Amino acid sequence: MEATSDDADRLERYAELAVRVGANVQQGQTLFLTAHIGHAPLVETITRQAYRAGAAYVDVRYMDDRVRRAMVELGPETALAYTPPWLTEWAESHDGQARIWISGNPDPDALDGLDGDRLGRARMHDLTEIIARHVLTNRSVNWSTVAYPNPGWATAMFGEPAVERLWDAVAFTTRLDEADPVAAWREHLTSLESRAASLNELALEALRYRGPRTDLTIGLAGNARWLSALSRTASGIEYLPNIPTEEVYTTPDCRVAEGTVHSPKPVRVNGQLVEGLELRVSGGRIVSVDADLGADVVRATLRTDERAAYFGEVALIDRSSRVAQLDLLFHDMLYDENAGSHLAFGAGLREAFDGDPGDALNVSTVHVDFIVGSPDLEVDGQRPDGTWVPVMHGEEWQID
Amino acid sequence: MEATSDDADRLERYAELAVRVGANVQQGQTLFLTAHIGHAPLVETITRQAYRAGAAYVDVRYMDDRVRRAMVELGPETALAYTPPWLTEWAESHDGQARIWISGNPDPDALDGLDGDRLGRARMHDLTEIIARHVLTNRSVNWSTVAYPNPGWATAMFGEPAVERLWDAVAFTTRLDEADPVAAWREHLTSLESRAASLNELALEALRYRGPRTDLTIGLAGNARWLSALSRTASGIEYLPNIPTEEVYTTPDCRVAEGTVHSPKPVRVNGQLVEGLELRVSGGRIVSVDADLGADVVRATLRTDERAAYFGEVALIDRSSRVAQLDLLFHDMLYDENAGSHLAFGAGLREAFDGDPGDALNVSTVHVDFIVGSPDLEVDGQRPDGTWVPVMHGEEWQID
Repeated sequence: MEATSDDADRLERYAELAVRVGANVQQGQTLFLTAHIGHAPLVETITRQAYRAGAAYVDVRYMDDRVRRAMVELGPETALAYTPPWLTEWAESHDGQARIWISGNPDPDALDGLDGDRLGRARMHDLTEIIARHVLTNRSVNWSTVAYPNPGWATAMFGEPAVERLWDAVAFTTRLDEADPVAAWREHLTSLESRAASLNELALEALRYRGPRTDLTIGLAGNARWLSALSRTASGIEYLPNIPTEEVYTTPDCRVAEGTVHSPKPVRVNGQLVEGLELRVSGGRIVSVDADLGADVVRATLRTDERAAYFGEVALIDRSSRVAQLDLLFHDMLYDENAGSHLAFGAGLREAFDGDPGDALNVSTVHVDFIVGSPDLEVDGQRPDGTWVPVMHGEEWQID
Repeated sequence: MEATSDDADRLERYAELAVRVGANVQQGQTLFLTAHIGHAPLVETITRQAYRAGAAYVDVRYMDDRVRRAMVELGPETALAYTPPWLTEWAESHDGQARIWISGNPDPDALDGLDGDRLGRARMHDLTEIIARHVLTNRSVNWSTVAYPNPGWATAMFGEPAVERLWDAVAFTTRLDEADPVAAWREHLTSLESRAASLNELALEALRYRGPRTDLTIGLAGNARWLSALSRTASGIEYLPNIPTEEVYTTPDCRVAEGTVHSPKPVRVNGQLVEGLELRVSGGRIVSVDADLGADVVRATLRTDERAAYFGEVALIDRSSRVAQLDLLFHDMLYDENAGSHLAFGAGLREAFDGDPGDALNVSTVHVDFIVGSPDLEVDGQRPDGTWVPVMHGEEWQID
């Protein structure tokens, strides 16, 4: 099927959104673009837009999960977590540059049926750590993630390669359907920023989640702010790390969490589907994992490093979310995390802190989001005077 | 279209040929695998075969000419020949390891219509030089090139995506149609080795090519031997750099060439089609370029470095060649160079020399093959006593 000129125009507008609003590529920067081989049309279009925006060079790194599968199945033990020196150099070179990740898995079955433990160990820790240092700790990278509609992803969602239907969903949620998507994003981000400001005024010290199979209390740090996704590098370049985004979020005090939490929706962890996830938490740490499917890959991921089993993010999303409105399971966390309130275990978010985070910030090479929001969930917040106030009940904000 | 089990078996046999006979991947080696994104099924299969052969790690680098096109069209001048430091590290890491290139261009129109001069300058010279040092000068890499039949390549050949027809041609020429392809290759290589030995006994000091629009004399170095493609690394690992191969070849004395030579077949130079190529040569150097199509990309390539315009290879192929038998234009030099006798300008072949090559060996980052063989071409050789003997007339060997 040849692309029509309407399709080509839509792709150009989307790539422009990724380059100008998302990563906000600056004159003279290198753009690091990481994508699956099935993302080639968007890779080409983003590359063109990036050079138009003044990029000095666009470096494309194409991934293929079938190569990873071959390594997990047949490679020696030493290959699993091996980070080649040229990739270390590549990761270090991100400092001060722009980056775009493309998501929307064209090959969602590629890792099915692999040994969960070997798959969990098949991660380039050194690489993740270097990039996390530049992106999260030093905030020296302006970056974004956008998804590319493709037949594999559409099949995972709809049971058939209905790419046009998926494009419609992507265009709605990324506001490509607006006459001026860039202006629409400015307006939407202003609204999220305002919600974050209201939460910051409440100065909550803890959140309590109550619902089916869920009763979890999680501590908030005194100097961590609620944020929208709108971000700035240390040098002041504004960027939007996720397109779309609907969340207001912060990082918890990773030392304080207690109880049980159940995820009402499936989640992909290290490429594998996990369903019915239920975590038991004690002293801030996830101490046991249950799931109807995929518990072993979660357990292996939690063993990745010392702090993988502590929490890194709490995010609140109401039912006005464009992703929530569609009521679709996207099988892609870039979208599905925007379908409802969620938590993440693993790395905390340095940018949420005013000043020194101290030990409240979790440091890990892992960051895995999972949905907790549902019509039956009640989230309350504890004020500095010890009283509890409703924050979100039944996916509706209980605060201004 | 799903692959049948016959297709899957053919792909496995082909990947095994590439890994075991071609690169001859050794236990504990890293395999560097470079491919176009359209080569993914062969990439996966070679990766699996390489791990089975004991590879420590398989590094896959996927290329996409659409990204290159964007750079040539829209990137700044400084981007064209820029070699990122992480790719320098990647290239240096080839030392002592195995490498496979996959050819068969899935996207042959990707670079059409670009400014020939900018395209000619869009090459990573540093990278090519490092790899040439390990592969050609130090002979520390066991490597091979195989092609992957795909719709784009088939369309370039047949005007339609007749992938099965192309697979038949590939299977015939790479001897996958034999019961034991590995044994068939051993036998074929023995025959080519024997022809090279006959040529070495003649101790020719020059070759003269005469035919339509062609009268070229090219000098041969006293200490350069005729070879088949069967090669060994400095440490003694046997490998076959091209599958298929039909040639007996050597490197010329790059200081000695005089006359005019015409190529009767199209050739791709830096991705662009060149037709009716005619070169005028004086004092060893190509001093003028004519062509019906694509002369500018040849001229730009000849300006790449100081020695690009001198000759690096002379190869003789008779009509028994399996590629010649098919009488197809493959639009891929891995195949088309095996359709007939050919020359290359640019880098000479260090491995052809016994001992110090001195100034006879051409050193360049360029190596471009073009066919000179045709039914009307006569190739004669000059003996040490000054007499001329027929070598190949009408695509038939004139020696034992």
